[in-house]
Amino acid sequence: MENNEKELKVSALENGTVIDHIPSNRLFTAIKILNLEKGANPVYFGTNMNSKKYGSKGIIKISDRYFDREEINKIALVAPTATLIEIENYKVVNKYKVETPKEIQSFAKCFNPKCITNHQAVPTKFEVFTDEKGMIKLHCHYCEKTTTQENMIFY
Amino acid sequence: MENNEKELKVSALENGTVIDHIPSNRLFTAIKILNLEKGANPVYFGTNMNSKKYGSKGIIKISDRYFDREEINKIALVAPTATLIEIENYKVVNKYKVETPKEIQSFAKCFNPKCITNHQAVPTKFEVFTDEKGMIKLHCHYCEKTTTQENMIFY
Repeated sequence: MENNEKELKVSALENGTVIDHIPSNRLFTAIKILNLEKGANPVYFGTNMNSKKYGSKGIIKISDRYFDREEINKIALVAPTATLIEIENYKVVNKYKVETPKEIQSFAKCFNPKCITNHQAVPTKFEVFTDEKGMIKLHCHYCEKTTTQENMIFY
Repeated sequence: MENNEKELKVSALENGTVIDHIPSNRLFTAIKILNLEKGANPVYFGTNMNSKKYGSKGIIKISDRYFDREEINKIALVAPTATLIEIENYKVVNKYKVETPKEIQSFAKCFNPKCITNHQAVPTKFEVFTDEKGMIKLHCHYCEKTTTQENMIFY
């Protein structure tokens, strides 16, 4: 039968952002945090790809879109290894690693069912910290309970 | 700065399945229905891509995996235009369109909050039909209410 010539056109982005080194099992959470399920820009994803450094990785390429640091740093909560590459006219113009924010508001849910943020129209607010094992945790500004990575739910 | 040489390796699959012509706004639902968020195979997605036929489309490529017809036909509920291509050793060995199943069980939720399937451990069961406008709808075997496409929720 005919050759498998069709290729997914994800080779080189002309303009846009590449987010690399996302842990494979966190790719869809990162997509949700960045709200990429709803945009109109061409977006390409790969998961369970070979990574020399981490064994397995996910990658996201978004055409014609750039992020401000605050927005992109949200994904550090689930993908602290992620690196960003910004492309303009097929050239890399910027490259950096995500940084874990010190404080986050509004986009993560408090794990404590009794927390006021789960009952009233109060936006969540957390201090972000890293425990002795290097795990990222969220300390709720209101109820003071700690939400661990496996319990993080994002709106 | 350095050239944007890195390419997402999604060109030609050696072995696996390509699902093409998925409506862009249904890509993530199709991913969920096929439970691709959890697998270990390399998977590549593209959305909001140019399509001559439909204006915009999504595509999924799954390495080293094939689906039986019954499983893949589930996505006809949200992506009736989807086409399947099976690849072996870089060659297309099979090509077909999804077909809307006549009946589905277990993986969609009944829209009626009073339906027994929403209260007891009864798996859902629907007759699938197409209305006069060509829209796919689900007729519940138990409560006889109709779930429309915009209300479909998949487990």
